[in-house]
Amino acid sequence: MIKPEVKKILLRYKQGTRSEEEVVKAISSGMVETLGFATVDHHREMRQGFPEVIFCEGKTGLQVAQIAKKIVNRGGVLFATRANPKQFSAVKKVVRRARYNTVARTISVTNRPVSKRGQGTILIVTAGTSDLPVAEEAFETATIMGNNVDRLTDVGVAGIHRLLTQSKKLHSASVIIVVAGMDGALPSVVGGLVDVPVIAVPTSVGYGANFGGVAPLLTMLNSCAAGVMVMNIDNGFGAGVAASRINRRKN
Amino acid sequence: MIKPEVKKILLRYKQGTRSEEEVVKAISSGMVETLGFATVDHHREMRQGFPEVIFCEGKTGLQVAQIAKKIVNRGGVLFATRANPKQFSAVKKVVRRARYNTVARTISVTNRPVSKRGQGTILIVTAGTSDLPVAEEAFETATIMGNNVDRLTDVGVAGIHRLLTQSKKLHSASVIIVVAGMDGALPSVVGGLVDVPVIAVPTSVGYGANFGGVAPLLTMLNSCAAGVMVMNIDNGFGAGVAASRINRRKN
Amino acid sequence: MIKPEVKKILLRYKQGTRSEEEVVKAISSGMVETLGFATVDHHREMRQGFPEVIFCEGKTGLQVAQIAKKIVNRGGVLFATRANPKQFSAVKKVVRRARYNTVARTISVTNRPVSKRGQGTILIVTAGTSDLPVAEEAFETATIMGNNVDRLTDVGVAGIHRLLTQSKKLHSASVIIVVAGMDGALPSVVGGLVDVPVIAVPTSVGYGANFGGVAPLLTMLNSCAAGVMVMNIDNGFGAGVAASRINRRKN
Amino acid sequence: MIKPEVKKILLRYKQGTRSEEEVVKAISSGMVETLGFATVDHHREMRQGFPEVIFCEGKTGLQVAQIAKKIVNRGGVLFATRANPKQFSAVKKVVRRARYNTVARTISVTNRPVSKRGQGTILIVTAGTSDLPVAEEAFETATIMGNNVDRLTDVGVAGIHRLLTQSKKLHSASVIIVVAGMDGALPSVVGGLVDVPVIAVPTSVGYGANFGGVAPLLTMLNSCAAGVMVMNIDNGFGAGVAASRINRRKN
Amino acid sequence: MIKPEVKKILLRYKQGTRSEEEVVKAISSGMVETLGFATVDHHREMRQGFPEVIFCEGKTGLQVAQIAKKIVNRGGVLFATRANPKQFSAVKKVVRRARYNTVARTISVTNRPVSKRGQGTILIVTAGTSDLPVAEEAFETATIMGNNVDRLTDVGVAGIHRLLTQSKKLHSASVIIVVAGMDGALPSVVGGLVDVPVIAVPTSVGYGANFGGVAPLLTMLNSCAAGVMVMNIDNGFGAGVAASRINRRKN
Amino acid sequence: MIKPEVKKILLRYKQGTRSEEEVVKAISSGMVETLGFATVDHHREMRQGFPEVIFCEGKTGLQVAQIAKKIVNRGGVLFATRANPKQFSAVKKVVRRARYNTVARTISVTNRPVSKRGQGTILIVTAGTSDLPVAEEAFETATIMGNNVDRLTDVGVAGIHRLLTQSKKLHSASVIIVVAGMDGALPSVVGGLVDVPVIAVPTSVGYGANFGGVAPLLTMLNSCAAGVMVMNIDNGFGAGVAASRINRRKN
Amino acid sequence: MIKPEVKKILLRYKQGTRSEEEVVKAISSGMVETLGFATVDHHREMRQGFPEVIFCEGKTGLQVAQIAKKIVNRGGVLFATRANPKQFSAVKKVVRRARYNTVARTISVTNRPVSKRGQGTILIVTAGTSDLPVAEEAFETATIMGNNVDRLTDVGVAGIHRLLTQSKKLHSASVIIVVAGMDGALPSVVGGLVDVPVIAVPTSVGYGANFGGVAPLLTMLNSCAAGVMVMNIDNGFGAGVAASRINRRKN
Amino acid sequence: MIKPEVKKILLRYKQGTRSEEEVVKAISSGMVETLGFATVDHHREMRQGFPEVIFCEGKTGLQVAQIAKKIVNRGGVLFATRANPKQFSAVKKVVRRARYNTVARTISVTNRPVSKRGQGTILIVTAGTSDLPVAEEAFETATIMGNNVDRLTDVGVAGIHRLLTQSKKLHSASVIIVVAGMDGALPSVVGGLVDVPVIAVPTSVGYGANFGGVAPLLTMLNSCAAGVMVMNIDNGFGAGVAASRINRRKN
Repeated sequence: MIKPEVKKILLRYKQGTRSEEEVVKAISSGMVETLGFATVDHHREMRQGFPEVIFCEGKTGLQVAQIAKKIVNRGGVLFATRANPKQFSAVKKVVRRARYNTVARTISVTNRPVSKRGQGTILIVTAGTSDLPVAEEAFETATIMGNNVDRLTDVGVAGIHRLLTQSKKLHSASVIIVVAGMDGALPSVVGGLVDVPVIAVPTSVGYGANFGGVAPLLTMLNSCAAGVMVMNIDNGFGAGVAASRINRRKN
Repeated sequence: MIKPEVKKILLRYKQGTRSEEEVVKAISSGMVETLGFATVDHHREMRQGFPEVIFCEGKTGLQVAQIAKKIVNRGGVLFATRANPKQFSAVKKVVRRARYNTVARTISVTNRPVSKRGQGTILIVTAGTSDLPVAEEAFETATIMGNNVDRLTDVGVAGIHRLLTQSKKLHSASVIIVVAGMDGALPSVVGGLVDVPVIAVPTSVGYGANFGGVAPLLTMLNSCAAGVMVMNIDNGFGAGVAASRINRRKN
Repeated sequence: MIKPEVKKILLRYKQGTRSEEEVVKAISSGMVETLGFATVDHHREMRQGFPEVIFCEGKTGLQVAQIAKKIVNRGGVLFATRANPKQFSAVKKVVRRARYNTVARTISVTNRPVSKRGQGTILIVTAGTSDLPVAEEAFETATIMGNNVDRLTDVGVAGIHRLLTQSKKLHSASVIIVVAGMDGALPSVVGGLVDVPVIAVPTSVGYGANFGGVAPLLTMLNSCAAGVMVMNIDNGFGAGVAASRINRRKN
Repeated sequence: MIKPEVKKILLRYKQGTRSEEEVVKAISSGMVETLGFATVDHHREMRQGFPEVIFCEGKTGLQVAQIAKKIVNRGGVLFATRANPKQFSAVKKVVRRARYNTVARTISVTNRPVSKRGQGTILIVTAGTSDLPVAEEAFETATIMGNNVDRLTDVGVAGIHRLLTQSKKLHSASVIIVVAGMDGALPSVVGGLVDVPVIAVPTSVGYGANFGGVAPLLTMLNSCAAGVMVMNIDNGFGAGVAASRINRRKN
Repeated sequence: MIKPEVKKILLRYKQGTRSEEEVVKAISSGMVETLGFATVDHHREMRQGFPEVIFCEGKTGLQVAQIAKKIVNRGGVLFATRANPKQFSAVKKVVRRARYNTVARTISVTNRPVSKRGQGTILIVTAGTSDLPVAEEAFETATIMGNNVDRLTDVGVAGIHRLLTQSKKLHSASVIIVVAGMDGALPSVVGGLVDVPVIAVPTSVGYGANFGGVAPLLTMLNSCAAGVMVMNIDNGFGAGVAASRINRRKN
Repeated sequence: MIKPEVKKILLRYKQGTRSEEEVVKAISSGMVETLGFATVDHHREMRQGFPEVIFCEGKTGLQVAQIAKKIVNRGGVLFATRANPKQFSAVKKVVRRARYNTVARTISVTNRPVSKRGQGTILIVTAGTSDLPVAEEAFETATIMGNNVDRLTDVGVAGIHRLLTQSKKLHSASVIIVVAGMDGALPSVVGGLVDVPVIAVPTSVGYGANFGGVAPLLTMLNSCAAGVMVMNIDNGFGAGVAASRINRRKN
Repeated sequence: MIKPEVKKILLRYKQGTRSEEEVVKAISSGMVETLGFATVDHHREMRQGFPEVIFCEGKTGLQVAQIAKKIVNRGGVLFATRANPKQFSAVKKVVRRARYNTVARTISVTNRPVSKRGQGTILIVTAGTSDLPVAEEAFETATIMGNNVDRLTDVGVAGIHRLLTQSKKLHSASVIIVVAGMDGALPSVVGGLVDVPVIAVPTSVGYGANFGGVAPLLTMLNSCAAGVMVMNIDNGFGAGVAASRINRRKN
Repeated sequence: MIKPEVKKILLRYKQGTRSEEEVVKAISSGMVETLGFATVDHHREMRQGFPEVIFCEGKTGLQVAQIAKKIVNRGGVLFATRANPKQFSAVKKVVRRARYNTVARTISVTNRPVSKRGQGTILIVTAGTSDLPVAEEAFETATIMGNNVDRLTDVGVAGIHRLLTQSKKLHSASVIIVVAGMDGALPSVVGGLVDVPVIAVPTSVGYGANFGGVAPLLTMLNSCAAGVMVMNIDNGFGAGVAASRINRRKN
């Protein structure tokens, strides 16, 4: 747990070749590591371990490819979100096994079998077909983070029977992510049918007074089903991470 | 159809005692009446006929009472919205038969049997108990305008079965007014279950990012059930008038 | 009314080869159908029957064409909104009779004579020429759903006489859709002239503090003519459906 | 035009007892006055001359009374806006001739006959009775600033005939102030009927998505009648000043 | 004043070949014209007379050209706003004398000497060089409507001396249009320096929390200089019309 | 599992005294119960079972007391949120054991030992002392729903060391609720330190551009720590339910 | 610099009675202190040293008094903001020397001569008299933190000469705080006249579309004078601290 | 100090060939110059002296090049912001020494050694790599204005240890600019760690409810670290100027 260089300094202090002040300063400068903070584990997992995530928006194909190559060479799992086809082509040239989900717009590589850590199944429910890109981003995120993930699509509340006839899927899930644009009403209905954690993701699908997703965002924040939790607009990645945090909990 | 004074002027013009210009001016000044505009009929009904509506907010009890007395003396139907108990007491003193709906905050008097003009039943559906004041305002409005009105209360989407077990009521209605605060998701579900006109009324019930009813307003404007029509926040009166306009249609 | 398979199960239960639990489960799983919900009829009409609606935005030409072909092959009426010329070309190749309204941006095919269900005439009133695309979308929608539809164009309130000289058209309509951008003042004037249902549709026409249609939306929600009902910004399709729901009411 | 002290300094400079630098500095420090800026005239008129305006909101009765007394003692015209009855009582005690307009909530005293400077008539048009406080504030402001002011009340667009039958008043005005809450549609209609300057004042009258006057404010900014000018919400005083600036123009 | 056909009908009525009802209906149907409404004069001037205005946004070059040709053939003055170079090229082909202001993006043709109606000078003041397109649109509008128009450019408040040294121009104007983006502070300063009407036009110039012109719009609505009147964001055309309305007033 | 009345009907059907149609209708009308939906269990727990929640805002003391008595008489657990002291006094008179948390403004009664269902510890972290009411509402909610709940108070990010020295508490929690007003920055820091689920609750604490909690709400939705889930402003109750849903998960 | 207990542990480690791990943990737990972070000095000054600040809003008089007494007993400087007269009375009873600024609504006690740390003069400029409460809060804050503070009041831009004749005061300041409501235009003018740091504070003074200070906030953020820094609405305290941070800089 | 032409006029006045009025007018017209206003010095430095700043957005390459050439020919320092590569190419052709920072999008030329005026070091801290363009704009601005500038990058609060291990850099700075998008939480943490002036710059980096930078803007305005000053969204240039104003203060 104690880093070698800290050991060395403490030894020298014992031997009298380092002052008190020097010891304190040395330990402090390496503070976070030596504290054994979960942050560290967390970061290792988030950045160097499983999902080393690249946010592609605003980067060139070359830039994404260079970062991707470095990650894969270190033996890590590669995961990139908001990637366009051009960026994938650039990555593909340097990382052969790279896989592209055209709907989710994610690039992924898994060098070694994922050590499954999620306990139950994460179910991703969508209201309409146009919510799929966000839902797929959540799907890919939760999958690469080691979870069993299932889907229930096109069950918007304007045809409520479509949802009700799927009660089995709903009740066998451990965590449910509900992705919905337009009126964003679906999480309220789902939240009332189940008692597991429900994560709502508003999408920018819609027109007029949808205001790029603000309408469903407000709907979800005001859900009459108690306990519905809300992500940012179109944030499928965040929903996948949140569901994964819940699912891998050991208690 | 032609008002007496217009007749008189035309006669005089024929007799040569009025010029062309005078005829044109005379007719024009009385123009709206002579045109036989429905506006006139409409206004007679809206203001002098059945529901002579007083908007009480910002008026003193005395002011409301004086207007009320004048209306009743003319033999008209009295209807007042947004009335507080003090205003009702003042009215009660001068108009004995005045009736107060404490939830809807409306005052009403019907001097003579209402000539029923509505064809079918207007159903008012509410999500939660706190939506009742707005729903009752719609109920009183639609009733005094001569419609059969029914209620379906506390059937919010977080407990969707409560709504589904009431399919009979939903399907026997000619027009449905759905009143909902918080997430405002109920009209989408109702709009998907029926094929009659659905009028959605957002309420300012809720807290936090409800923003005084903006959240359900946006939800309803973005309803995924095609054809849902929306009223202003808390506007139960407007919903009652709109439903009445639909219900009394003869086609 | 009862589906054959349900009949079979009940028979077997009577014969003793099915348990109570099995009967309940079987009926429930087919619940929505067996309930004889209007939802079903409604959906049949909305989706498989007359207007099978495709929302084209965000779909490729190929995708739209494939869906369109399937619908037409099943003998259904085809209706697509927000379609661009490319999408129409793709559809045209597989569905010869497809018709494109370049202003409304709708594609439609009617395989068989529409069984007229609307009772009266739906009148579509527009303030300016730039509101036409939204008005035409409403026109096409209401037409394909089996209504007589009429138009009254370019009668904005800044030249109020243009509207007033058309009182005949206004008063012969059963339902009026008013489409207006900029200040959105027209529905208030129309709502004061007639006593039939008025549906207001704000458009995103305008600049500066129009905020993509928010200005006329707010105007309409606050209409001083009681009972004006409001649709989402640019939602001509929704207005057409709403007017159709009102017009086909039998009471 | 040149202030005595400046004359003195220039004389001394001529006599050699003041340096160049001292002259420049002296003139500059008194710069605005000596420049004969209209600002000065303007301020004299706005503050010490005719309408010495006190904004009462947030001031105690005593404070308002003290300022009022000082102004009247200097012989000036007194004008106070947003005054409540308590503040008026306090003023009344020290300034006997003070007059209170309970609707406009203004206090005024005119010590001497107002030298009429306005050329034509300012007409103030209101949509509903609840817009009267703002309209009256504009009326009192324009009156005390020396204009002929006329009123046209309760001519909202939902009963458009009420406005049209008043064309004479509309066409004899030199400047028109239109005060309207709710949908704020009236200025567009008025602006289309006349060709004189039209000043629109939105009021915070309404409820729900009126947002304290934002709805009519946006309506007016987006007026389809070209050239309508807009004031801040409820700003009757500003409208009165603006109309007065226009009316007293000599060209 | 009375249209020939009305004369004819009245004559026939006198002769007994037209009934009372027919006379009333005939006059009413031609009502606006026969009323001698200023609207008519106003419209003649606004549409058929001097500035026949085409709003080019969203129109094809061909469409603009066709409308332009029709106007010019009728002998009218041509004026088009928000025109791009392509639209101008199309117009140029059919209307040789058409002139294009590349900054204002206006097209104009004046077939005959403008009968000057404006009394004084309209001064257009701008804060920064990027406000010029809006200022030029106002300039062209006011000019073609028959006013003397002057400019004062680049006198933003961050260098207040630039404005102060131009007091002569400010004080010789009859109406002042102030165009400003960013903080929109200039109209407040100008409004405090002069006592003529001040029209403020916010522009969408700026970035970040400028919100496309909302920031200067709010600044101007809240101007601490009493009587500043505000136009919609970027609405140079409206400001030109408003200033023209003020300037041609005869009182 | 099958309700007695359903059993009875099936029996009669077998005996031939009920038709097929009657059986289907009877089962359907009791449909939700017979389906064995988790909704039912969920509702039993949420409404009749453990936390029967009363939202007190807008109710009289008497109303709250009457509901409370009914719940306790049925043997249920009583829980009321947003209760003021007056409402508590009214409840106290009829339910002696009622306990009031003055900070959380909750009333609670637990008739029988809570069957602990939560697996780990829920930690509630607050930025400032003024966030306590919301945090306490979450505390009381999570406690009565059968969870171990711990607190970490006054560890706002402006004194980041206060949080860092509490790493032990942070890392021993199963779920973390972070309550913060003002800048709402705390959840981002906490979310970066731990890998368990983090629920962020914005509070309306702050002034100026806090906009009643909108500022921290947006901060949290945009958290740079992936996977932070957000509740509505001041919604401590919702956060408690959400955390409880997560904590009682069996996987 | 090293705390005694750390010294003790290091000694024991040297003597062999403490393990390496124990040393690291001990130092880390006391980490912030031992690191010699400026945070510590900063906090000492901010909290235990000079201005120990109590934010009074939402606290009872008793609570404020108790905290105040504790602070003064420790010998610290007392400073409380947003204090109402009742809270001051409570404090006055236990801390005799407490001083109340009724305009700024601050309570302060300085037990010992303030060791002046500010280098130059902080000038506080206000647009109107209603901005004084915020300006005074800034004044009291900057004063108690050891700065020379000066004032320049009522120099709003609508009377620009009032500001210009005060150039001496403006140019002798080291830091300028500009407090303005309504249009918030003053900081732009001041920022253009001087080259020292300018801190702008918007106030919620105004009505209509001022939106509680949002209008001047946006104005200031968009200031055309480069380098103007902005505080939250009404945040006089924050401006005082910011100016003090700038003024005590040693470079 | 006194301009030659003023001298001449004063002389003539002494000789009697100029009247008093003429002297006053002459001095006034040249007023700002003769007043020795710092404005002048300030402007000389801001515009003709060191950083003559060109805002490139909306200008053609040719326009930028022409202005640039003029400035350099006058011997000035050239500085241009928001420049795209095309604009730089155009400048490069006429000004060989022009340097382009592709990240900051600035063009700069320093003809002569910058006379260093800044006293200490300005530190620019960024949360994420996507904040770099804004940070670099601030860097280039502060550098060309004669300051020592340092950077601390990618130290967002989701990995708080990255910031804490850099305490040395933080504490050696005289002024700190913190650039952050997404949740904008970084300035609060930095503001709590140091006691020097902190300038926060929100960036439009993020998606969904980031609203183009509004989310971090509100976060920063509500910072719980007292005294954090805020710039407009993406306004790196303004932050550089503000920091420079602070750093060159002499006190």
